[in-house]
Amino acid sequence: MSRKLRMGMVGGGQGAFIGGVHRIAAGIDGQIELVCGALHIDPEIAILSGQDLYLNPGRIYKTYHEMFEKESKLSAEERMDFVSIVTPNHVHFEPTKLALENGFHVVCEKPMSFSLDEALQLQKLVKETGLTFALTHTYTGYPMVKQAREMCTSGTFGKVRKIVVEYPQGWLSTPLEQTGQQQATWRTDPKRSGKAGSVGDIGTHAENLAETITGLKISELSADVSTFVENRLLDDDANVLLRFDSGAKGVLHCSQICAGEENAIKIKAY
Amino acid sequence: MSRKLRMGMVGGGQGAFIGGVHRIAAGIDGQIELVCGALHIDPEIAILSGQDLYLNPGRIYKTYHEMFEKESKLSAEERMDFVSIVTPNHVHFEPTKLALENGFHVVCEKPMSFSLDEALQLQKLVKETGLTFALTHTYTGYPMVKQAREMCTSGTFGKVRKIVVEYPQGWLSTPLEQTGQQQATWRTDPKRSGKAGSVGDIGTHAENLAETITGLKISELSADVSTFVENRLLDDDANVLLRFDSGAKGVLHCSQICAGEENAIKIKAY
Amino acid sequence: MSRKLRMGMVGGGQGAFIGGVHRIAAGIDGQIELVCGALHIDPEIAILSGQDLYLNPGRIYKTYHEMFEKESKLSAEERMDFVSIVTPNHVHFEPTKLALENGFHVVCEKPMSFSLDEALQLQKLVKETGLTFALTHTYTGYPMVKQAREMCTSGTFGKVRKIVVEYPQGWLSTPLEQTGQQQATWRTDPKRSGKAGSVGDIGTHAENLAETITGLKISELSADVSTFVENRLLDDDANVLLRFDSGAKGVLHCSQICAGEENAIKIKAY
Amino acid sequence: MSRKLRMGMVGGGQGAFIGGVHRIAAGIDGQIELVCGALHIDPEIAILSGQDLYLNPGRIYKTYHEMFEKESKLSAEERMDFVSIVTPNHVHFEPTKLALENGFHVVCEKPMSFSLDEALQLQKLVKETGLTFALTHTYTGYPMVKQAREMCTSGTFGKVRKIVVEYPQGWLSTPLEQTGQQQATWRTDPKRSGKAGSVGDIGTHAENLAETITGLKISELSADVSTFVENRLLDDDANVLLRFDSGAKGVLHCSQICAGEENAIKIKAY
Repeated sequence: MSRKLRMGMVGGGQGAFIGGVHRIAAGIDGQIELVCGALHIDPEIAILSGQDLYLNPGRIYKTYHEMFEKESKLSAEERMDFVSIVTPNHVHFEPTKLALENGFHVVCEKPMSFSLDEALQLQKLVKETGLTFALTHTYTGYPMVKQAREMCTSGTFGKVRKIVVEYPQGWLSTPLEQTGQQQATWRTDPKRSGKAGSVGDIGTHAENLAETITGLKISELSADVSTFVENRLLDDDANVLLRFDSGAKGVLHCSQICAGEENAIKIKAY
Repeated sequence: MSRKLRMGMVGGGQGAFIGGVHRIAAGIDGQIELVCGALHIDPEIAILSGQDLYLNPGRIYKTYHEMFEKESKLSAEERMDFVSIVTPNHVHFEPTKLALENGFHVVCEKPMSFSLDEALQLQKLVKETGLTFALTHTYTGYPMVKQAREMCTSGTFGKVRKIVVEYPQGWLSTPLEQTGQQQATWRTDPKRSGKAGSVGDIGTHAENLAETITGLKISELSADVSTFVENRLLDDDANVLLRFDSGAKGVLHCSQICAGEENAIKIKAY
Repeated sequence: MSRKLRMGMVGGGQGAFIGGVHRIAAGIDGQIELVCGALHIDPEIAILSGQDLYLNPGRIYKTYHEMFEKESKLSAEERMDFVSIVTPNHVHFEPTKLALENGFHVVCEKPMSFSLDEALQLQKLVKETGLTFALTHTYTGYPMVKQAREMCTSGTFGKVRKIVVEYPQGWLSTPLEQTGQQQATWRTDPKRSGKAGSVGDIGTHAENLAETITGLKISELSADVSTFVENRLLDDDANVLLRFDSGAKGVLHCSQICAGEENAIKIKAY
Repeated sequence: MSRKLRMGMVGGGQGAFIGGVHRIAAGIDGQIELVCGALHIDPEIAILSGQDLYLNPGRIYKTYHEMFEKESKLSAEERMDFVSIVTPNHVHFEPTKLALENGFHVVCEKPMSFSLDEALQLQKLVKETGLTFALTHTYTGYPMVKQAREMCTSGTFGKVRKIVVEYPQGWLSTPLEQTGQQQATWRTDPKRSGKAGSVGDIGTHAENLAETITGLKISELSADVSTFVENRLLDDDANVLLRFDSGAKGVLHCSQICAGEENAIKIKAY
């Protein structure tokens, strides 16, 4: 196929964080162009955000429903190929479902959904449509992680006995959500973020890294989940003992109150 | 201006190194799109290279002469705004001159030219046309370098007395140019690279960094310039004593034969 | 007092590990001289060990009982001032008790004893005699640790919320004790080492560091203690969730099977 | 020989720096004991210094002349075996000569002497007496340096082409000698330090390290030697281009005005 892939985007407008990262990543190798977007829940901001990105005015949409409907009617030479879903957590399941039903491949931010039932629905839909569904556990894309996985799973080191994985952040050390900061607000709101705070936001990356690199599965765990900042509704820290299916043991800890840390994800496998 | 800047490119086709870096850099913030190119000295490779980048076939040019001529006749809504010149060193002066004469802004890889006279011609042309001419001493773009400059020149540390700057590379530790590797071939060829090897290729970055960060000018130097790899025509190593206009002193060393180093540029100012 | 302190030693002869460290530490500032020793459980090795250290033959003792008895009868100008007890764990309580009863100050390797009851007996004896009893949690002697303690407890950082402390070693990754190596043999033997393996040997240093630096006390814990090397009788790895009396939480992990690590003790307090 | 070596010391009393380092080094392995000293040029301070070190009053000497004379008359069971000379530079040659003439082995701080002629006299004397004379280029004692030497000279890396060695210090960034500080005072005084300041004090260590590790000899050099602190009589900074007998090239820089550095000696050999 001698053309760029055509990407649409749900979320990622003004005030967003991860959408810009998706656009940079998509732009780096010159194989993808952003052609359309439903970039914000507020239709006016959605339009302004599309203009910021120099989108064709006819392809700046007010809602993702409108985007999927109209894009699916465009010719094969124009229509977007896939959609990047970069909204807050509570708006992952529905646009993914709708995109798949309208024939679009999906790159979706984690988490996939708010319940196992929803996840199973998506799994079924992916199977039926034959479309690609990619969940962005972004750390697994680094060459160093792939190399580590190869070294662990090929037996270079012998059998892995102990795994220590951590993801400390410090940005929520203070009640930042009470200042109205957009990222802090939705990420500490159970309605938009889901049941988990730090565990869902970054603990999942630590968990994913541990299982990806070692090729092992966590079979048992014991966790001490805490909320250190007063009046916060979700956890901002967790310490977890791990047992893996192979008999390996380990520790996972993640935090949003480790003042001084930015995104200090680290793993050791012995 | 509510549109992306339109970039053309001279050089940067198949087998090139720095052109791809320019494209990534240009793509990162979504403010620039590549619209045309004369991407290789061989017209056939120029066309294949343009296809690799999904350029509009009508704007894949065989020579930069053709590109400047045809682009200058396009409408203001279509025409490229500026050209990125990423050819080997001996093809910097001419396309820059031609681009300026045809009304295009220029981003040019270092060195600007092969002689002082050529450089003065370009300076005059830039003044007359009012166009922007940017020479890419890329390291000065890092926030850390700007911070260092601010700290040195604001007197935070007092007067700078000593500067040690180094740029060791190891990729030319062996006679790589004899294998036909494209980068090694032209960079060790005086006709294409100019009179200087390692000094011109990377020593200039060290020199530029030292002067940029400290705000001082080198007034005297004593250099020991060497060629370690047999039959190589240009220097691949240099050690230089520096004196600055302020009375500060220092050392600059650069090398392409420091096996084990990649692009280990470093500076200390005391 | 214008003379060196006179030190005796119990343990620390041929094949020992920590005794030599005590001697180096004692020698560094030139304030202490080793004057006598009961250096090994085997009387012949005790004598050879004393000769290695150029001790006066009359003060190389076969047992610590003999040493305490004879030293206590020497004149004040000759008699040892204090004894350094550097035997395997099961020989800490008795010589400490006997030394105190004979009027000698004691520097004792951890652990103090095998039971709380024994520890209380020593506490009582120290109180009654007015003698100094020092237990060597050696890491707390570093200036950096003292500085960290000052910074944590003075409130420089605000209230400590999270503590992560680790002590990974790798030297027991293989069944080294089965080769007869002296250190591995007693440290993995419950009769000589006590009930704990890695937890007692190095986990205690991690625990001590956490409490010393933060000034907090561990109030609750949940531990996953493992033995990874087959046929080993004591634990060689532990992962522990911590809760402190102040409400702070944390993680402690220690291990003797982290191949590649030597004595990689580390602590973070947020 | 089943006894400790008996060391005497010239210099190293109150206010001294390197003497204490020699005593620590001598004490670490328990094979050496300090038995006598002529520890200061001022006889009263010499006596107080000997008391600080708990020397036998009869072996605290007021001058090294007295020490060599009296020690040489003691019995073989008592007499010192060797003398450590840790005085300022201008008092190295004479006590070394006298010690050798009186039959004592010598460990002498660098430099050996103030002139080539003096050095040749000592060489002759060492040959005639068969005594050991050791000059303390202390960095060459580190196992890592020995390993580096082995790797460079065994050809593991191929032929060494480039060497960069540096020794930056910052302690003389200000005119510390004007405050009366004892170390700064003599080290910046040509009468006591000799003709070289930073070059002699620490540049020699860099030079020695480069030649020791690579096994090469410097055959040519070009140096820019500076004095940055006003009214200082000796150099406090130097930048040097090096050529080695093998054709290798390099850079050596040393400084006492690199504020922020302590003893940051480093070497790279490519």
